[in-house]
Amino acid sequence: MRLISFTRLGDIGFGALVDGGVVDLTNQLDYGVDTIKGAMESDLLEFIEDYIEDRPPNFSMSDVTLLPVIPNPTKIICIGLNYENHRKETQRPDVAYPTIFVRYADSQVAHGQALIKPKSTERFDYEGEMAVIIGQGGRNISEESALSHVGGYACYNDGSVRDWQRHTSQFTPGKTFPGTGAFGPYMVTREEVGDYTKLPIQTRLNGEVMQDATLSDLIFPIPRLISYVSQFTPLAPGDVIVSGTPGGVGDKREPPVYMVPGDLVEVEIGMLGILANPVIGE
Amino acid sequence: MRLISFTRLGDIGFGALVDGGVVDLTNQLDYGVDTIKGAMESDLLEFIEDYIEDRPPNFSMSDVTLLPVIPNPTKIICIGLNYENHRKETQRPDVAYPTIFVRYADSQVAHGQALIKPKSTERFDYEGEMAVIIGQGGRNISEESALSHVGGYACYNDGSVRDWQRHTSQFTPGKTFPGTGAFGPYMVTREEVGDYTKLPIQTRLNGEVMQDATLSDLIFPIPRLISYVSQFTPLAPGDVIVSGTPGGVGDKREPPVYMVPGDLVEVEIGMLGILANPVIGE
Repeated sequence: MRLISFTRLGDIGFGALVDGGVVDLTNQLDYGVDTIKGAMESDLLEFIEDYIEDRPPNFSMSDVTLLPVIPNPTKIICIGLNYENHRKETQRPDVAYPTIFVRYADSQVAHGQALIKPKSTERFDYEGEMAVIIGQGGRNISEESALSHVGGYACYNDGSVRDWQRHTSQFTPGKTFPGTGAFGPYMVTREEVGDYTKLPIQTRLNGEVMQDATLSDLIFPIPRLISYVSQFTPLAPGDVIVSGTPGGVGDKREPPVYMVPGDLVEVEIGMLGILANPVIGE
Repeated sequence: MRLISFTRLGDIGFGALVDGGVVDLTNQLDYGVDTIKGAMESDLLEFIEDYIEDRPPNFSMSDVTLLPVIPNPTKIICIGLNYENHRKETQRPDVAYPTIFVRYADSQVAHGQALIKPKSTERFDYEGEMAVIIGQGGRNISEESALSHVGGYACYNDGSVRDWQRHTSQFTPGKTFPGTGAFGPYMVTREEVGDYTKLPIQTRLNGEVMQDATLSDLIFPIPRLISYVSQFTPLAPGDVIVSGTPGGVGDKREPPVYMVPGDLVEVEIGMLGILANPVIGE
């Protein structure tokens, strides 16, 4: 099942993609639920699977404006250096734990919406990543049970402002500029994805392949990430773990490649679709 | 003016400290405002100054249970290495920019509430700091106008889990465990504080002075912090900038000193009162 967040006729809503369009789920489930996050808080994903079966679409995709898959996560926890070829290209040491930083929800854009190159940088870089959307919260989650806490997966572009990221030892300033985190087009539920490690991930800039890997390449796999993060902070439905980017970032190429207004960047992950965003200047 | 956030008879509220107790401001201003954040969003601080003048208290401090000054900031932006003697004791390089990391709101406790030493560490450390509470939001705020965006100031204890903070290059995991960030007892409004650089700051562990400095010692003063942060992320009323800790942290002492259950830790800042918290085990 593929779920989208959108605005339609000025109102926020969510729905499921079916043949020919969108089944509207906004306040349709007799639970007053109008977001994917709300649906997961009420443990409604299985209910929705049944609800949409054989149901005709309420409207077409062209009737809605997509929002980031989860527009307002309380926590967006980003993982750095989680593919060996990216760790090596950044010359970072081999470490025993995932590298953790965060971005804020107000830095996100949807599929199709423009990524914004800040005025204060000429070093705006892509990072194609798989986002893990928490469906069931918890603290001190074991690796064994971790995947049962996943609601679904989606494509993410963790757009990074490289000079600001390196102002000091801490990455945060380069990782949360408004309009730099693309999230979409939709969430695919965990059951539908099955074994996420089989998924290929690719980032293309103006059609040219820049990053190309498989989710089995993660140094710290998803169960380990969920378990580790949940030890230092509680996870809740709608929280997002952005699982890291493969080698091939623009900043480490010879010569370096940065995104500029007019570019089109795409992150494609098997089963999770294509997240495509034009780039504009601030 | 000193403002507190509290629960009373099970309901969340806020009020002003006056002689003999608390003037209740919860939904009292004909604006449906029931938090300090809400009051600042509606630009009501001056109105409240007038409202409480000559008004008798509605109840005494013993009738309320304090909450963190702002219980639910969207952004808690922490500054590392912002006093020269702390930078030197950590052997971090001299840098041209503030070091930025974040904590989440669900890691906070109030004045008087217990700080929680996580099970997974024996290296739980104090960090006395001055918190700056944003009263008026903005982006790309100039240093010249920055202080006009401050709603007020309060004491903060940025309790740090040193081993988790050093799992990798990024501090986040050691900085947001539940029950590790103390914030209180109250916010003092900017006008009442006047020149914040005159304020002394002291941290005491079981009565012994561990950190002792003056806010004029900040490497990056408050206007610079607000201006810098607002360049990479928009600030809103109720957001908090925790401005860094002086030298004398427990982790860098010989021998090191860590907080253990049964300890009492106090952060005192001139005009901002004493933030006192016992320590318990998870």
